[in-house]
Amino acid sequence: MKQTLVKDLYRNTENYIDQQVRISGWIRTIRDSKTFGFIEINDGSFFKGVQIVFDDSLENYKEIAKLPISSSLKVEGDFIYTPQAKQPFEIKATNIEIAGTSNVDYPLQKKRHTFEYLRTIAHLRPRTNTFAAVFRVRSLAAYAIHRFFQENGFVYVHSPIITGSDTEGAGEMFRVTTLDMDNLPKNEQGQTDNTQDFFGKETNLTVSGQLSAEAFALAFRNVYTFGPTFRAENSNTARHAAEFWMIEPEVAFAELPDIMDLAEEMVKYVIGYVLENAPEEMTFFNSFVEKGLLDRLQNAHNAQFARVTYTEAIELLKQSGENFAYPVEWGLDLQTEHERYLCEKVFKKPVFVTDYPKEIKAFYMRLNEDHKTVAATDLLVPGIGELIGGSQREEREDVLAAKIKELNMNEDDYWWYLELRKYGGTKHSGYGLGFERLIMYLTGMTNIRDVIPFPRTPGNAEF
Amino acid sequence: MKQTLVKDLYRNTENYIDQQVRISGWIRTIRDSKTFGFIEINDGSFFKGVQIVFDDSLENYKEIAKLPISSSLKVEGDFIYTPQAKQPFEIKATNIEIAGTSNVDYPLQKKRHTFEYLRTIAHLRPRTNTFAAVFRVRSLAAYAIHRFFQENGFVYVHSPIITGSDTEGAGEMFRVTTLDMDNLPKNEQGQTDNTQDFFGKETNLTVSGQLSAEAFALAFRNVYTFGPTFRAENSNTARHAAEFWMIEPEVAFAELPDIMDLAEEMVKYVIGYVLENAPEEMTFFNSFVEKGLLDRLQNAHNAQFARVTYTEAIELLKQSGENFAYPVEWGLDLQTEHERYLCEKVFKKPVFVTDYPKEIKAFYMRLNEDHKTVAATDLLVPGIGELIGGSQREEREDVLAAKIKELNMNEDDYWWYLELRKYGGTKHSGYGLGFERLIMYLTGMTNIRDVIPFPRTPGNAEF
Repeated sequence: MKQTLVKDLYRNTENYIDQQVRISGWIRTIRDSKTFGFIEINDGSFFKGVQIVFDDSLENYKEIAKLPISSSLKVEGDFIYTPQAKQPFEIKATNIEIAGTSNVDYPLQKKRHTFEYLRTIAHLRPRTNTFAAVFRVRSLAAYAIHRFFQENGFVYVHSPIITGSDTEGAGEMFRVTTLDMDNLPKNEQGQTDNTQDFFGKETNLTVSGQLSAEAFALAFRNVYTFGPTFRAENSNTARHAAEFWMIEPEVAFAELPDIMDLAEEMVKYVIGYVLENAPEEMTFFNSFVEKGLLDRLQNAHNAQFARVTYTEAIELLKQSGENFAYPVEWGLDLQTEHERYLCEKVFKKPVFVTDYPKEIKAFYMRLNEDHKTVAATDLLVPGIGELIGGSQREEREDVLAAKIKELNMNEDDYWWYLELRKYGGTKHSGYGLGFERLIMYLTGMTNIRDVIPFPRTPGNAEF
Repeated sequence: MKQTLVKDLYRNTENYIDQQVRISGWIRTIRDSKTFGFIEINDGSFFKGVQIVFDDSLENYKEIAKLPISSSLKVEGDFIYTPQAKQPFEIKATNIEIAGTSNVDYPLQKKRHTFEYLRTIAHLRPRTNTFAAVFRVRSLAAYAIHRFFQENGFVYVHSPIITGSDTEGAGEMFRVTTLDMDNLPKNEQGQTDNTQDFFGKETNLTVSGQLSAEAFALAFRNVYTFGPTFRAENSNTARHAAEFWMIEPEVAFAELPDIMDLAEEMVKYVIGYVLENAPEEMTFFNSFVEKGLLDRLQNAHNAQFARVTYTEAIELLKQSGENFAYPVEWGLDLQTEHERYLCEKVFKKPVFVTDYPKEIKAFYMRLNEDHKTVAATDLLVPGIGELIGGSQREEREDVLAAKIKELNMNEDDYWWYLELRKYGGTKHSGYGLGFERLIMYLTGMTNIRDVIPFPRTPGNAEF
């Protein structure tokens, strides 16, 4: 008899009524009296477990009754339909095989643990309800993103992780090397001789796949990346990790409003997909992680996202009468408090802010006619602040070249990026979505360390 | 009028007959006489382009006629259905807007270029037929893998890229650091003080996500990773890259034959998906890259993969009478020539070889009852050799701990990996699929540098 997944017992219950079934999984709870007992077993395929009833007709009854939780079992038994009971069904065991015995010092005992503690046992925490829900939703959201772009004809591009250039033109990168750190080769000037490194030069971990994506958008029109990116920023906040995943769609012949439409459609698609495919997990978050989560997501799913220029946003913030910690002034970047005020208090839904001052945005963003702002947009969402940052790219070779010079960037790194403009470059636009921000938005989890399987932050690279 | 994608013109031709359409794209070829001309335009959405007919009724006729190839255009015109002609339709332009003018020194002129040369312009090569086909198939194959696992209830896990440990226990890793290479901090012994590094210790780029996947499989049962992995191997071959993508499914309660079934089903699914969704590209490969490709793939798709033990395989090779460059002896690893002989000459289809000598396989593979072999399997495929390597994992804590000690591995790195066995660890198995190998298998391309958007190899980290 093939093994049945618990998910299938829940989703196709009627198929199993009065049938023999065979499942396997891990003990979540176990209690027994002299002659019979109950085990809640979870097999990982589904958020909820199944109740197993077992009694001393099993020859290994006593051995089973003594098992520590998290031991793994293979169970054969009769599927008992119990539509009146709290659990819609249970399994009356006819045979139980012990697949792996756990230990009484298993750290995940019944009492509630702090998220901080659970981070120290990141190899076990996906066995808890909260993290089982988080990481299933993470998986579903990743797939929803692929589905969305693939169904819309986008080509998935694996942009390089190791890079010789710095996309954003703004430091804070991890060096990648094979040089012997205890015996570095030196050049004639007494500096480290990077020409002897693996790639013949200094290389770093990427901060963005955008420039690569642009090259591919000018061949395939619609492309996206989805891969890990890195920041060597020494900041210990609930929102920063050294390693995180980004999605970066790039669209040829698209102007700023086109990619705002795309971003809005994508966010709604992912929300809809997760609500449909993880109803148990989302209900759990709504009850135990963030009250009102489902309303917030449904609201975003149904709303038409607002659109406002940076200049208008500054006016709205100034008129608000709010006492912000950071100053509000045209030319200064918006802080999270400002972003959240705009979407939570003013618009009460996601809002695109557009056309930021050129000084606070990246070199590749297209200069507007006013010569003061660039065709950039940030999508701000309630509970999070900035979820997405995008722009129309500067497609004019001369304007871009002048900008690279003006910022004293290393022009040699950008020869090919400029050539994209020289050889039939057209208007194009794209955006970046921080995947962990999205998961926090979808689940209500408030620390980025709790939405990454094995998070990397300053001082932490365990597991 | 919204823009139409060329793909849609081909796939839903009947919708456009006698309609006005608006497309945009890049000039692939252009020729003109005094009063009219033809442009083949490709918009990136589809392998094939569209013929545009334009004449001097357009006020910018002369300007257009002089455009270098790869210039970008926006075209409005009448869709002319031509079922008798070589091309099933063409567009009679009523308006052409020049979106971006290219340059006469555009490197991709009509003549055939070598793959070696095209690697030096990796930012432009996706505009050629071959690389447009390769990278579209790469995208579709990636999506097919996600679809396959998601539809089978697998949870996608983002295993960490930066790691403090060495999964395979076998060097050749890239160091990741934020230490100042021209001014390294030293400890009292005069060595580099790694405690001052970003993570407080030495860290490297991952060579495999498997150990993380095991942790998640023991919570979710069915999981997979799909992410970049790295080897700092200084080998300049057509099969090695420093950065490549791996897929690593891991299944709790699965034994070796179970994951062989899974691997077989996955490979067939991906072949089927790509043949169905990229027929033009696959026909192109069959004609211009590898004659017989489609037969080879159809054969694999329809075959039942063979299964043979390593010991039997050695016998088959010895009896073959072939003159191999490398020796064939029980205890020695199979070389590519042996692998290809087995699947191409003996079985004429993909073949799983199982139960290799423990000495030539990784520490985490489950020791068989004979105490000489481990429950490992490699999937060998015609044209490539090893495509997949998998195993049942050693779930017995004492056997695993003894192995780690025997190999003088750093036990501190594996405390959590051993705990997975201590706390209800059960039998589990998984495999690793090198994604680039799969793309080479699907396309017939023979150099790994030609299936990665921007490949990283010794001395090469351009773009």
